[in-house]
Amino acid sequence: MEMISQNKVFDGWHKQYEHDSAVLNCRMRFAIYLPPKAAQGAEVPVLYWLSGLTCTDENFMQKAGAQRIAAELGIAIVAPDTSPRGDNVADEDRYDLGKGAGFYVNATQEPWSKHYHMYDYVVKELPELIEATFPVSSKKAIAGHSMGGHGALTIALKNPGMFTSVSAFSPITNPINCPWGQTAFTTYLGNDRELWKQHDSCELIAAAGDVRTPALVDQGEADNFLVEQLKPEALEAVVAETGYPLTLRLHSGYDHSYYFISSFIEEHLRFHAENLGA
Amino acid sequence: MEMISQNKVFDGWHKQYEHDSAVLNCRMRFAIYLPPKAAQGAEVPVLYWLSGLTCTDENFMQKAGAQRIAAELGIAIVAPDTSPRGDNVADEDRYDLGKGAGFYVNATQEPWSKHYHMYDYVVKELPELIEATFPVSSKKAIAGHSMGGHGALTIALKNPGMFTSVSAFSPITNPINCPWGQTAFTTYLGNDRELWKQHDSCELIAAAGDVRTPALVDQGEADNFLVEQLKPEALEAVVAETGYPLTLRLHSGYDHSYYFISSFIEEHLRFHAENLGA
Repeated sequence: MEMISQNKVFDGWHKQYEHDSAVLNCRMRFAIYLPPKAAQGAEVPVLYWLSGLTCTDENFMQKAGAQRIAAELGIAIVAPDTSPRGDNVADEDRYDLGKGAGFYVNATQEPWSKHYHMYDYVVKELPELIEATFPVSSKKAIAGHSMGGHGALTIALKNPGMFTSVSAFSPITNPINCPWGQTAFTTYLGNDRELWKQHDSCELIAAAGDVRTPALVDQGEADNFLVEQLKPEALEAVVAETGYPLTLRLHSGYDHSYYFISSFIEEHLRFHAENLGA
Repeated sequence: MEMISQNKVFDGWHKQYEHDSAVLNCRMRFAIYLPPKAAQGAEVPVLYWLSGLTCTDENFMQKAGAQRIAAELGIAIVAPDTSPRGDNVADEDRYDLGKGAGFYVNATQEPWSKHYHMYDYVVKELPELIEATFPVSSKKAIAGHSMGGHGALTIALKNPGMFTSVSAFSPITNPINCPWGQTAFTTYLGNDRELWKQHDSCELIAAAGDVRTPALVDQGEADNFLVEQLKPEALEAVVAETGYPLTLRLHSGYDHSYYFISSFIEEHLRFHAENLGA
């Protein structure tokens, strides 16, 4: 593992690392923010942040303004990349498939199955690496945006007990019923819709049973992708049906950008801090 | 003038506009953040933010995290581009001359003098446009980073009474004595060093006389450009000599990036708010 950059931010440190990922079969980059408390010897909990289509580890770290609050609360933040990377990695000449669009699943279809295992990377390899390397505790929360909101919700729902809490901005709530999700799932997982359902937040909440990881979702009402891709009404319906502890908030005038995320990230961090006991 | 984007941020609005600049003789883009108070009919004061080499109107708006505090304080922020733009505008194949590197002077040398009048753009054309278009008062402050820190300090010093206060992150304090400044001034202004001195913060403070615009400067001690280009010790010396009301703060571990700016922008906005009476 190699540190490739570091910047002091709010008395803590933002650092970028590269490492060889066995799960993804390529060289990967991630970013971590270590709050000042971590430098003082404390084992801090970790919030994993999953970004959306076209993003890397950098978007959230540069644009969300999260470090101020993470520093105050004593929470580390880890931001992985959004897909495997490198010249040998399969790709398509479009923004919603291939590099930058891993969709947080394990691909079963050729040629994608050689590298596209973002689910295992986020659930297993990355947290093991983080907990073996940095002064963090095993307490974890997870959050994300758009495709990464889908990733955060599905990963938390599929791994009860792993995360104290989950939150999302503008998540793809029902990928089996929207173009982004259908394209990605057909490409990465093939035509078996039963397999698709295992990566659909609405389906997972409907089948959650005793799983009760607290969840917070924020959605802008001026989001260009609201109706066709994000479908908060599907999430609202299944939450109403099941009584799942998910708070869905709609925000008038806000769009799909990091300007929206920056406006409400503080509330997400405080929500996670409360659940993490940070 | 044409609005090309808008995003709701902290209950206010970030907007990008394009307009034909008579001073720069080209189409220009700028960004404005209007705090919620402006939508309620109040005339808010304006902080002008001048960015550094290679930047556009976007860097500060996306990375500094300033909107949260501007919303609270009721201050608008205007971020111009850093040079004239367009296919007809003279350029060099380097990051520190030409497009993205206007240095906030009025070029006197060919071919630059046709477009490179960033000084007049920031001092005259842009504020006139802003005050004629938006619900802002005539109260103004100015701030900037690196090349833009140089721009903010020199413009405030050369226009006493125009700005209530000035602040800078990592400014090029003494351009007549550093490679960035010498290259830019030779190229844009020619070889007359007396003319250069009219755009050098240290020289202007030495000659400030009764000018007493309050100033705040933050500089990271881990800044890669500290010794060769930025020279805070030159600023410190002239402030000590003259008693100019400038507070210079050095910050251990911080670098030249927006991670540094985001860590201290709140204090700059509160400094300006106090002087603006916001």
